[in-house]
Amino acid sequence: MTDIHARLKERGFRLPVPPKPNGNYLPFVRSGRQVLVAGQTSTSDGVLQYEGIVGVDLTVPQAQHAAALCALNALAIAGLACDGDFDRLRALRLTGFVRCGPDFADTPLVMDGASELLVLALGERGRHVRAAVGVAALPRRSPVEIESTFEVDE
Amino acid sequence: MTDIHARLKERGFRLPVPPKPNGNYLPFVRSGRQVLVAGQTSTSDGVLQYEGIVGVDLTVPQAQHAAALCALNALAIAGLACDGDFDRLRALRLTGFVRCGPDFADTPLVMDGASELLVLALGERGRHVRAAVGVAALPRRSPVEIESTFEVDE
Amino acid sequence: MTDIHARLKERGFRLPVPPKPNGNYLPFVRSGRQVLVAGQTSTSDGVLQYEGIVGVDLTVPQAQHAAALCALNALAIAGLACDGDFDRLRALRLTGFVRCGPDFADTPLVMDGASELLVLALGERGRHVRAAVGVAALPRRSPVEIESTFEVDE
Repeated sequence: MTDIHARLKERGFRLPVPPKPNGNYLPFVRSGRQVLVAGQTSTSDGVLQYEGIVGVDLTVPQAQHAAALCALNALAIAGLACDGDFDRLRALRLTGFVRCGPDFADTPLVMDGASELLVLALGERGRHVRAAVGVAALPRRSPVEIESTFEVDE
Repeated sequence: MTDIHARLKERGFRLPVPPKPNGNYLPFVRSGRQVLVAGQTSTSDGVLQYEGIVGVDLTVPQAQHAAALCALNALAIAGLACDGDFDRLRALRLTGFVRCGPDFADTPLVMDGASELLVLALGERGRHVRAAVGVAALPRRSPVEIESTFEVDE
Repeated sequence: MTDIHARLKERGFRLPVPPKPNGNYLPFVRSGRQVLVAGQTSTSDGVLQYEGIVGVDLTVPQAQHAAALCALNALAIAGLACDGDFDRLRALRLTGFVRCGPDFADTPLVMDGASELLVLALGERGRHVRAAVGVAALPRRSPVEIESTFEVDE
């Protein structure tokens, strides 16, 4: 099995610098083997890459890429919880919030961008449960925010 | 104590076929004793039963039934995690997303449809914590989506 | 280290009566060491203190206070799970839902009101992960609803 960084690079992705919290909170907490990660927006190395309403300002493929960036940020932070040893990491749950209007029905398609990124990065251990919810507003006008939970082997 | 199937049938409900994921993710994951279940919409055996905006296209009683269908789907999936032995299952948390406009204040009433279903099905072990959030859009225009967590006795 | 009640009082806060559920559910459940708390609105001793849409009916400072009230309610309920021995309590995660229109970008600022309250009350053990999501509608027209998870030392 190739290295996580090589697998990501092959598809044009890379792990960003783990984002700093956007307020008075932590990037992750441990609870037993679970790693709870703070909500992530579509930044890369701290710079917002997409802004706006999916279906209005962004197409679904753009929103899928935005969702993948959220997942990469979550993964970078989860990496801090396993000392960069990603083989010990397993994805458990994503709750995806997609900024859209009331007529948008494709929140699951958008979230596939994040789900596929995690499977690309972690293989079978990247498979997870998720929800895909369409909401009015997100931090810094990000089109996607993802809350996530991982598990780490001792 | 009667059987879960008998208790559901008495009120006109039945456990559906566990829904397949609507994208690249899993129906449930185990983490220790916790069973994390993917977000469920108001389908029955995979067919959407309700569509639209609560308070506009659906009445509160219709939305309560839609919420009960979401809970039934979650329960059917949680049943896979305990090999159908529902006596080993306990409900922990529901996060309910109700598709509605900004003036709708009765998201808790809608979610009572799901909460009462779980208590009907599991008795005292069906009691749980929950949140009831009104949102713009949900997968496949479902009026309700419910993310849930259960616990299973070893 | 001073007492939690003294620290809150110094900033004009106090622990409310733990809110009763607004429907057929529980205020909290235990799962291992985790304490899952039901979604809390901006009530104090059961009376809603703020109502409306943040950025329209409420300013950001008012919404921050509303978020702090949600956190106080969650804390009062978590206190039931540790028999009032708050030194055994640790905050893990807040999911904050802020009622706002599609142009509101300051959901993290609003949620800082809750995050700072938890750090004030619990010190380092009050630090947590969080998400800040802008939504259409919340129970009883509350401007903020917060779902939370704590951990308790045995």
